[in-house]
Amino acid sequence: MERRGNLMQFRPDIKVVDATIRDGGLVNNFFFDDEFVKKLYRTNIKAGVDYMEFGYKASKELFNPEEFGKWKFCDEQDIRDIVGENNTDIKIAVMADVGRTDFKHDILPKSESVIDLIRVATYVHQMPAAIEMIEYCHSMGYETSCNIMAVSTARERDIDMALELLGESSVDIVYLVDSYGSLYPEQIKELAEKYQAFADRYNKKIGIHAHNNQQLAFANTIEACSYGASYLDATMSGMGRGAGNCMMEMLMGFLRNPKYSIIPILRFVQDEIVKLKEQGVVWGYDVPYLCTGILNVHPRSAIAAVRDGDRDYTNFYVGLWDKEG
Amino acid sequence: MERRGNLMQFRPDIKVVDATIRDGGLVNNFFFDDEFVKKLYRTNIKAGVDYMEFGYKASKELFNPEEFGKWKFCDEQDIRDIVGENNTDIKIAVMADVGRTDFKHDILPKSESVIDLIRVATYVHQMPAAIEMIEYCHSMGYETSCNIMAVSTARERDIDMALELLGESSVDIVYLVDSYGSLYPEQIKELAEKYQAFADRYNKKIGIHAHNNQQLAFANTIEACSYGASYLDATMSGMGRGAGNCMMEMLMGFLRNPKYSIIPILRFVQDEIVKLKEQGVVWGYDVPYLCTGILNVHPRSAIAAVRDGDRDYTNFYVGLWDKEG
Repeated sequence: MERRGNLMQFRPDIKVVDATIRDGGLVNNFFFDDEFVKKLYRTNIKAGVDYMEFGYKASKELFNPEEFGKWKFCDEQDIRDIVGENNTDIKIAVMADVGRTDFKHDILPKSESVIDLIRVATYVHQMPAAIEMIEYCHSMGYETSCNIMAVSTARERDIDMALELLGESSVDIVYLVDSYGSLYPEQIKELAEKYQAFADRYNKKIGIHAHNNQQLAFANTIEACSYGASYLDATMSGMGRGAGNCMMEMLMGFLRNPKYSIIPILRFVQDEIVKLKEQGVVWGYDVPYLCTGILNVHPRSAIAAVRDGDRDYTNFYVGLWDKEG
Repeated sequence: MERRGNLMQFRPDIKVVDATIRDGGLVNNFFFDDEFVKKLYRTNIKAGVDYMEFGYKASKELFNPEEFGKWKFCDEQDIRDIVGENNTDIKIAVMADVGRTDFKHDILPKSESVIDLIRVATYVHQMPAAIEMIEYCHSMGYETSCNIMAVSTARERDIDMALELLGESSVDIVYLVDSYGSLYPEQIKELAEKYQAFADRYNKKIGIHAHNNQQLAFANTIEACSYGASYLDATMSGMGRGAGNCMMEMLMGFLRNPKYSIIPILRFVQDEIVKLKEQGVVWGYDVPYLCTGILNVHPRSAIAAVRDGDRDYTNFYVGLWDKEG
């Protein structure tokens, strides 16, 4: 498959999705103050970002609202307190995890909501439940995406089957998600080509959500973009679970469409992200994340090692062979 | 051009080159204590690293030996104090900058030296002087490489001309060097293909030396490798000027040849690199380096900004347009 676009032109199909509150919320249990979120919203508008993801639509039956900030739940009124009627060009997204969302209760009809896109996050084996949610959200009037997580540990035939099921569904966008930050660009290319062939057949769009365990989040994002992905997830300074995500400032430096501007992003980083880091909020590349990335396992043990300041990297790496490898 | 090799096999032509002392020396003016260098040498041997670069062969007429550690000059005896006769599988490299080396005085005949490879660093416009040095070192019995720096700002026809001149020379290896960390993987692929076509024509090898301004050093290294580069530079935790280099621990996680082992590298990082960082030696990705990388300029102003703790990234970025853009 040919590379799409080049560095002297731009592809008008590209959509930049800011996932700072949602993936970044996994770092601070979604405790962002409103000023931060409002500033982020204004920054994204100025920078030409196409979608801003506010957080999860998590079930209040399953998660105690006293233990999490409000962006774990994304009540309609909380979003409106930030965006009003959102009379802007930016679209609003939320994520809904399969099995962790009371979607029939918590997803309002689109006519009553400022949300535009509902991103359904699923493992490959939960596909029937994911499709039920997608069809429900679609029938309520929303754009929908399906974010198939942890494909680096899925069997290829299961991915193929999931894509077939999604092809027959109402979903608009299917995301390639490197949950463990373990995929190399040449694997991302192969997967992006597979997803894009599916997307061409069923008239869908594809997206990419990368993690930075091997400092490949940005490289993998632009590689997937080259081979078809048009929805590109990024977060401010990569804020996200563990090693974090593709950095918005890197992506803005790469994209050639003059609608995008890196300047508001740099300003947000210097004004807000520097402060957050000084307050002790920790994310980003570190050796334990590299280890779980190389071994293609969940980053939970690396998150614990970084939290505990464990720098016996050799022991940590060797321990992963037994615990999770 | 087809990708070479895949993730289930290995290419026996790959050579890993540890450049920690040489590029890392640019961070601490080459003041490494002997214990550090000895441990690094033993680590590289255990990890299967193929070459270890000790530093520069800089002219003592041009640089005051009191202002720099000994690895700026790499006297024969200083190397021997670390490696003895080097009765091991690892080869010893040093770098010699065009115009900054008294090569006729400081390069001994190979029969009197433990050095195996002399890496001649040059800008594209210095090629005649580079070739003079290469021929001299070759005639003294050494392997030679030519590291053409800052090709991201060179004219393509000048690069083509330089490659032709090198093709006719005695050089063994030609390096693709992304001095400013500004090249994207798709540009690295194009350049690697150009270099590889030249290498095939003249029976040369090619190498890659990347910088991490956009967190692309590892991605660019494996991309160049995929399209022909067999000499791969890396440093411990990326230690090197500014944003640093491709991290050895990442490269070791990627390579499939069972001769390579990540374990000694992780041990060196936890024992020595953590200590160095705690002592206040600073390198690695930071926003100002991203800015100079995006704008394809020398990192000197970013190094100053990081040193001074200047976090007005917006002002820094905009200032680059005038100063260096």
